[in-house]
Amino acid sequence: MNAEILSIGTELLLGEIVDANAAFLAGELAVLGINVYWISQVGDNRGRLEEAIRRALERSNVVLTTGGLGPTDDDMTREAIAAVLGEGPVIDHELERTLRARFRAMGREMPEKNLKQAWLISSAEPLPNPLGTAPGWWVTAPDGRVIGSMPGVPSEMRTMWTEQARHRLEHLADGVFVAVTLKTFGPGESAIEERLGDLVKAANPSVATYAKRDGVQVRVAARAADRKQARALVDPVVERVKRILGAEVVGADDDSLASVVGDLLQARHHSVASAESITGGLIASYLTDVPGSSGYVLGGLVAYNEDVKRGFGVADEVLQEHGVVSAETALALADAARDRFGASFGIGSTGVAGPGAHGGENPGLAFVAVTSIDQRQSRQVRRIAPRETVKHFVALSALDLLRRMLLDK
Amino acid sequence: MNAEILSIGTELLLGEIVDANAAFLAGELAVLGINVYWISQVGDNRGRLEEAIRRALERSNVVLTTGGLGPTDDDMTREAIAAVLGEGPVIDHELERTLRARFRAMGREMPEKNLKQAWLISSAEPLPNPLGTAPGWWVTAPDGRVIGSMPGVPSEMRTMWTEQARHRLEHLADGVFVAVTLKTFGPGESAIEERLGDLVKAANPSVATYAKRDGVQVRVAARAADRKQARALVDPVVERVKRILGAEVVGADDDSLASVVGDLLQARHHSVASAESITGGLIASYLTDVPGSSGYVLGGLVAYNEDVKRGFGVADEVLQEHGVVSAETALALADAARDRFGASFGIGSTGVAGPGAHGGENPGLAFVAVTSIDQRQSRQVRRIAPRETVKHFVALSALDLLRRMLLDK
Repeated sequence: MNAEILSIGTELLLGEIVDANAAFLAGELAVLGINVYWISQVGDNRGRLEEAIRRALERSNVVLTTGGLGPTDDDMTREAIAAVLGEGPVIDHELERTLRARFRAMGREMPEKNLKQAWLISSAEPLPNPLGTAPGWWVTAPDGRVIGSMPGVPSEMRTMWTEQARHRLEHLADGVFVAVTLKTFGPGESAIEERLGDLVKAANPSVATYAKRDGVQVRVAARAADRKQARALVDPVVERVKRILGAEVVGADDDSLASVVGDLLQARHHSVASAESITGGLIASYLTDVPGSSGYVLGGLVAYNEDVKRGFGVADEVLQEHGVVSAETALALADAARDRFGASFGIGSTGVAGPGAHGGENPGLAFVAVTSIDQRQSRQVRRIAPRETVKHFVALSALDLLRRMLLDK
Repeated sequence: MNAEILSIGTELLLGEIVDANAAFLAGELAVLGINVYWISQVGDNRGRLEEAIRRALERSNVVLTTGGLGPTDDDMTREAIAAVLGEGPVIDHELERTLRARFRAMGREMPEKNLKQAWLISSAEPLPNPLGTAPGWWVTAPDGRVIGSMPGVPSEMRTMWTEQARHRLEHLADGVFVAVTLKTFGPGESAIEERLGDLVKAANPSVATYAKRDGVQVRVAARAADRKQARALVDPVVERVKRILGAEVVGADDDSLASVVGDLLQARHHSVASAESITGGLIASYLTDVPGSSGYVLGGLVAYNEDVKRGFGVADEVLQEHGVVSAETALALADAARDRFGASFGIGSTGVAGPGAHGGENPGLAFVAVTSIDQRQSRQVRRIAPRETVKHFVALSALDLLRRMLLDK
């Protein structure tokens, strides 16, 4: 069985809103094991809307629409569905009563325009909307194909989906879909794919790679009759991918570099502090994005010029002999952070984010370092990109260095 | 002229990511005065991808695609376009040289898989990608219809759009569209709209408000035969909006709170330093996102627990009498930052981002403060939201306080 999602509203075509409704429904359909091959956005235009519904019914068993159920002339989802099925909408008296009662409860007179929200066609049953005036439609066409129409307001749509639409589809779906996303940091997408070899060619479970801003992700996904069988397909492959990629795997699903580092620090009763130049506070900010980080993040320093670095305890000789942008300066900053806050781990960063900083020499070159009582490691990082992207990548590189050092312990 | 957007990638159909690329491009096309009637998402499936491209070319003059330009077997946008146009891709030696050079610069061997990113067809010219290995394609079909293919990674797509694709379309559009976006921080969207009154009902120039993560934006846009005429429509309305909103207007277009604060500091030969608790380094990071910020950002402190705050010079009595989460502590942190770095302005932040921190009391309550030799101001901030959103809003509130103090000088 396959489903198609149709998001209706001119504001989508003007880029005024992002279509989060479609992504939500697509995720829900994936969990139900229903394939989605097509998603589209169409404006408040009767001709194009009918064309889109007609085509969707030709190629998909289920069509879910959002939007176009309001009371204004611009809202024409009901009209378009009725026209495609060759039916005429009539006022449903039960719906009208509910609608009028709703307005009375708000202490308002119902504008006559709203009466169209009480329309129904004979092949549709209404889906109640506890949060708004637009009921949905659950339409079963003569050939068994289904159209589920829900409002475009995200909260109304989600409630209607959860309370009314989902269970109607569960009966129709074959099996469920389970996916685990492993997150890596460091190697590129093609390098990861080469290491995974034939695994990425498998079908059930499927293994796919995605290049994301925070690193390459590997998704293992399977479909089966029930959740237990799907997990039995997914879990061994997840373990195999983990074995192949080893320490490149940062975590899974909701894990981030900062949350994984936080878990490792807490489990080992360690603490951390930072002294940042190129990243300008971003390492500390990422560390403190994690709930509970106040338990292990002691503090941070941002040293954006040489005098300040000296003031924090970076020796003049280090700066003179190796330069500000050097592994030695990053190590000295990490030491300074440890010293200053009495933390078990210190993190340092230095480099040139460019353009404009340090006369533009060597933009994108940076060094990160992590030191502890018995370890001192640094890493060179190079990334030619906009300033914020460079900072982001350097900050993640520092967290990844700390992660690997904590794993080695 | 009309354009259509096609977003390619199975992760879109699984609901794993929201299609922000399509919304971005739709907004850009609206600004160019190009109508968008269709947006769709299609998976990494060769047959459906070809079908989608073929249909788009039948009904639209311009087709913009994002995604599917990576090096792996799943990436088949190039193959599909070539097949629809009946052409065969060949390796372009110039592209291959650039690609190999890019890998060399990163100190890595180019996997042979990546060679497909050097493919070209005879009706396509390559669009350089300064941020990644996937060049785009600008295809002109025999009948004059255009396909612009860009990568799916948002930063790469946006850069390629701005530097390569946009001006190619500007030539094709009828008339020009000029828009100025004014950025505000503080008041909500409906408050801004009320103050603008009838202005938001005008048609050419149109005035529209958008609630964004960094504050409400007001876009003034007009269409005319040429740029000069369009500007003559837009500019007086921009001035009117500025007069109405006064100091609520942070800046326009590419300005950010951090860049505007930076300009003000530089113009007045001032410097700044920060001491952050709740924002954990994010204020310093935003300040240093601006090229040239090393000229006025002296440094920063991240104080994530009381001892550290005391160590930085926040008096015990302040903490005891007013509590950690108080205007007085924020002011004391700002003073400590000024003192420590000898900056003309100090910024302080304190609060509870929640959940998990400080026992979860009063999450979303924060204070920011800015002090100088003759001014001391603080602001209470309240935002019930996910942790990262609270931090973001508190950091922007601190920058906005500094901005208003600099304007008053």
